[in-house]
Amino acid sequence: MTPLKIGMIGLGTVGGGVAKILTQHPDRIERRAQRPIVLQRVAVRDLTKKRDVDLPAEILTDRVQDVIDDPEIDVAVQLIGGTGQAREIMLALLAAGKDVVTANKALLCEHGDELFTRARELGRSIAFEASVAGGIPIIAAFGSALAGNQITSLSGILNGTSNFILTEMADKNQTYEQALRRAQELGYAEADPAMDVDGTDAAQKLVLLSQLAFGVRAAVAEFPCSGIDTLTLEDLKCAADLGYMVKLLAVARLVDNLLEMHVSPTLVRNNLPMADVQGVFNAVKVTGDVVGETWFSGQGAGQLPTASAVLADIVDMAVGRSQLTFPTLDLFGGRTTFSVQPTDKILSKFYLRFNALDRPHVLADITDILGRHEISIASVVQHESPEVESNNNSVVPVFIMTHRATEGQMRAAEAELNQLKSLQSPCIRMRVAE
Amino acid sequence: MTPLKIGMIGLGTVGGGVAKILTQHPDRIERRAQRPIVLQRVAVRDLTKKRDVDLPAEILTDRVQDVIDDPEIDVAVQLIGGTGQAREIMLALLAAGKDVVTANKALLCEHGDELFTRARELGRSIAFEASVAGGIPIIAAFGSALAGNQITSLSGILNGTSNFILTEMADKNQTYEQALRRAQELGYAEADPAMDVDGTDAAQKLVLLSQLAFGVRAAVAEFPCSGIDTLTLEDLKCAADLGYMVKLLAVARLVDNLLEMHVSPTLVRNNLPMADVQGVFNAVKVTGDVVGETWFSGQGAGQLPTASAVLADIVDMAVGRSQLTFPTLDLFGGRTTFSVQPTDKILSKFYLRFNALDRPHVLADITDILGRHEISIASVVQHESPEVESNNNSVVPVFIMTHRATEGQMRAAEAELNQLKSLQSPCIRMRVAE
Ligand SMILES: NC(=O)c1ccc[n+]([C@@H]2O[C@H](COP(=O)([O-])OP(=O)(O)OC[C@H]3O[C@@H](n4cnc5c(N)ncnc54)[C@H](OP(=O)(O)O)[C@@H]3O)[C@@H](O)[C@H]2O)c1
Ligand SMILES: NC(=O)c1ccc[n+]([C@@H]2O[C@H](COP(=O)([O-])OP(=O)(O)OC[C@H]3O[C@@H](n4cnc5c(N)ncnc54)[C@H](OP(=O)(O)O)[C@@H]3O)[C@@H](O)[C@H]2O)c1
Repeated sequence: MTPLKIGMIGLGTVGGGVAKILTQHPDRIERRAQRPIVLQRVAVRDLTKKRDVDLPAEILTDRVQDVIDDPEIDVAVQLIGGTGQAREIMLALLAAGKDVVTANKALLCEHGDELFTRARELGRSIAFEASVAGGIPIIAAFGSALAGNQITSLSGILNGTSNFILTEMADKNQTYEQALRRAQELGYAEADPAMDVDGTDAAQKLVLLSQLAFGVRAAVAEFPCSGIDTLTLEDLKCAADLGYMVKLLAVARLVDNLLEMHVSPTLVRNNLPMADVQGVFNAVKVTGDVVGETWFSGQGAGQLPTASAVLADIVDMAVGRSQLTFPTLDLFGGRTTFSVQPTDKILSKFYLRFNALDRPHVLADITDILGRHEISIASVVQHESPEVESNNNSVVPVFIMTHRATEGQMRAAEAELNQLKSLQSPCIRMRVAE
Repeated sequence: MTPLKIGMIGLGTVGGGVAKILTQHPDRIERRAQRPIVLQRVAVRDLTKKRDVDLPAEILTDRVQDVIDDPEIDVAVQLIGGTGQAREIMLALLAAGKDVVTANKALLCEHGDELFTRARELGRSIAFEASVAGGIPIIAAFGSALAGNQITSLSGILNGTSNFILTEMADKNQTYEQALRRAQELGYAEADPAMDVDGTDAAQKLVLLSQLAFGVRAAVAEFPCSGIDTLTLEDLKCAADLGYMVKLLAVARLVDNLLEMHVSPTLVRNNLPMADVQGVFNAVKVTGDVVGETWFSGQGAGQLPTASAVLADIVDMAVGRSQLTFPTLDLFGGRTTFSVQPTDKILSKFYLRFNALDRPHVLADITDILGRHEISIASVVQHESPEVESNNNSVVPVFIMTHRATEGQMRAAEAELNQLKSLQSPCIRMRVAE
């Protein structure tokens, strides 16, 4: 069969991995695609940069336009980050008649409506398996394998950096800062890891998955999102004492026909598979009304696992599957399925940590405020601190587990709690998975 | 778009589930398929049988030929068991120009070469997601999601009945017979459960997966296959004491460029996810050289999980994906990839149980035979039996864990061991996962 000529934009972590496999193993790709796949052109920013993949000099260019303008290129693989230039480039590629493969969840979360709609108008397709949970074929699952189901819930660990940090802290008794540094040394966390550790990256992925699974296009601002950046080793130890692991969990599930969504550090019972997901692994648990519970896990980020997902999309494009699937996905706004549960109404059990300065009164103050907001307490843990008796100003952590309360109750209580003079710092809050 | 008219053959456990969802939720199927899917004709054996799905009487028929001859039916969903009639019907459907969806692994394992080749010659497709691991989209994973990978190993729990029985025994302290009866009461095990519990069903599924993953068409007879039907509660308890769960594991992996395959009750370390797979759940761990380790789990059998997989295939057919994918799968014999590792050469650690009649000599006899076959012993467990002192003829179990030995050494030793007068019954052997 005629070769598929592809153009690539970006030859960084992910692009480098894709180029490596395409050039080192053309045979296996051809076997699955039943046609050769040829890397025709690769655009980068800096032509002089040393790369760890060997490509013929003549296929490299620093002009993205060379890819856009090449009439022989049918499929463009866009592997640059950001949402500004990346958006413009994708629009230009679509306008030039190319189908596009991308791993950029930030772009699709922010500009997905525009890009997906534009692609459909132009009869083009966008494939984005690599944008969520790297090695896990979760986009494909929603597009095809679970087609007979009404999905009722999905929950997952979608940010490998956060999970790596939490695993390092829990297993190796490291502080948050030590674990983050280790993640950066190993190349798991970016120089600026803010979006990974504050929950934004997981929330962007949840937006994409919720659209595919429930036909609901939510914005990150529409649901609670918090990250692991305020947690301490003490929180993990307290959770462990209570029989839980802490995971950054992204959840979307139907509750009384409304879609409840949130991203939060969450206490997960030790004996559940989700508690066992280690290091940079991601996992997604999906429940459908026909299939029941299903579970997927694999490495969520990193050069090769992400490249594996990009290669799957390239092969799907070469075979023609992506072009058939894309118009059948719930990506085109117009559909009305479920509304997003208002943030204030979301019910959860909560874990709270307070850094108390003044032990005798503080517990009464806290329970008084929680009580006034009708938040009932399931348990309180307050450890003896070694210096307590000698020094009244030492900080003593107080841990509280609540019964179910709404996010609204909790936020109102929190606002008051954080005014307490007897607390050294704002209260730390996690959800408790049920 | 024009509706897809389908014909179904078989309206039993699986067929009944598929018909239910198609008739109760036509909207969701149409949404994913982007065209209505119409159940045009359903063939059964006995028209008078009461069914728990309500279909218009006029679409039911007891003549399979009515489906074969209907020119409006493009896709046939064949959900009958067996390998005789089922083969003939499938050949007739293909010859009549229909694409076929099936869940019949026995048929595809035994006659796959003929059926797949015939389908390709006729320009037709066969989809069979439901034939392996019900709710887990593992066929799709090999066909598309893992396309960029050389798969290096796959291992899984592929028989839900066996896993249910093992879980009942381990968790509820049930004997094999009690657990099997419970599985039958709950409808997990057939009236004749032989193929489930002797490993054949898992082996048939392994044959299909190995073909897709490695391009190797093996016959069940080419690799060691044993089941759970000889295990006792004592074996599970001994394994538990040593820190293991017993699982019926199907394995195919590349070792020095040969494909090692086996199905065996296997000791799996307690802390591994595979040990945590409960009840009728199946799980598959797949390692690829690009993606690394990935993991899938879900219910492996039962009406609805299996129907979910069949529905995915029907939607893939309606969209046209199956027709594109089928010719790209490694199903057509001609390809030479890896050879199957000869059975005698397969290396494993083993667990052995002996029912010793005559304690003083038996251990010396056993270790002598193992020693002569150069099988070295890692540990021996021999529990005091209450009656031992009073009765020389009581049966005392002896458990031995070996270091790595080949299947050939083990089989030769076993033949001699089973001649020992001091043993009451043949030795029980399991693999130990490494
Ligand atoms: N890294 C992961 O594990 C991972 C996982 C999943 C998804 N993703 C997503 O994949 C995308 C790429 O990530 P990455 O980690 O591969 O990023 P990266 O290592 O920073 O690479 C970005 C590449 O894009 C090129 N580039 C940037 N702007 C360009 C422009 N205007 N014109 C031409 N080339 C340009 C850069 O060129 P130079 O090399 O010349 O600077 C570089 O090769 C992001 O959207 C990211 O979120 C990454
Ligand atoms: N059950 C599971 O959980 C499961 C899971 C995965 C795969 N599978 C596979 O799916 C297939 C079907 O399994 P099942 O459990 O649904 O079987 P089943 O309950 O025994 O149903 C078989 C159906 O086929 C019909 N049938 C048999 N021979 C026929 C013939 N010659 N002409 C017309 N109809 C005929 C029967 O008709 P009557 O109803 O009139 O007798 C019955 O409706 C098997 O290959 C099985 O291995 C089953």
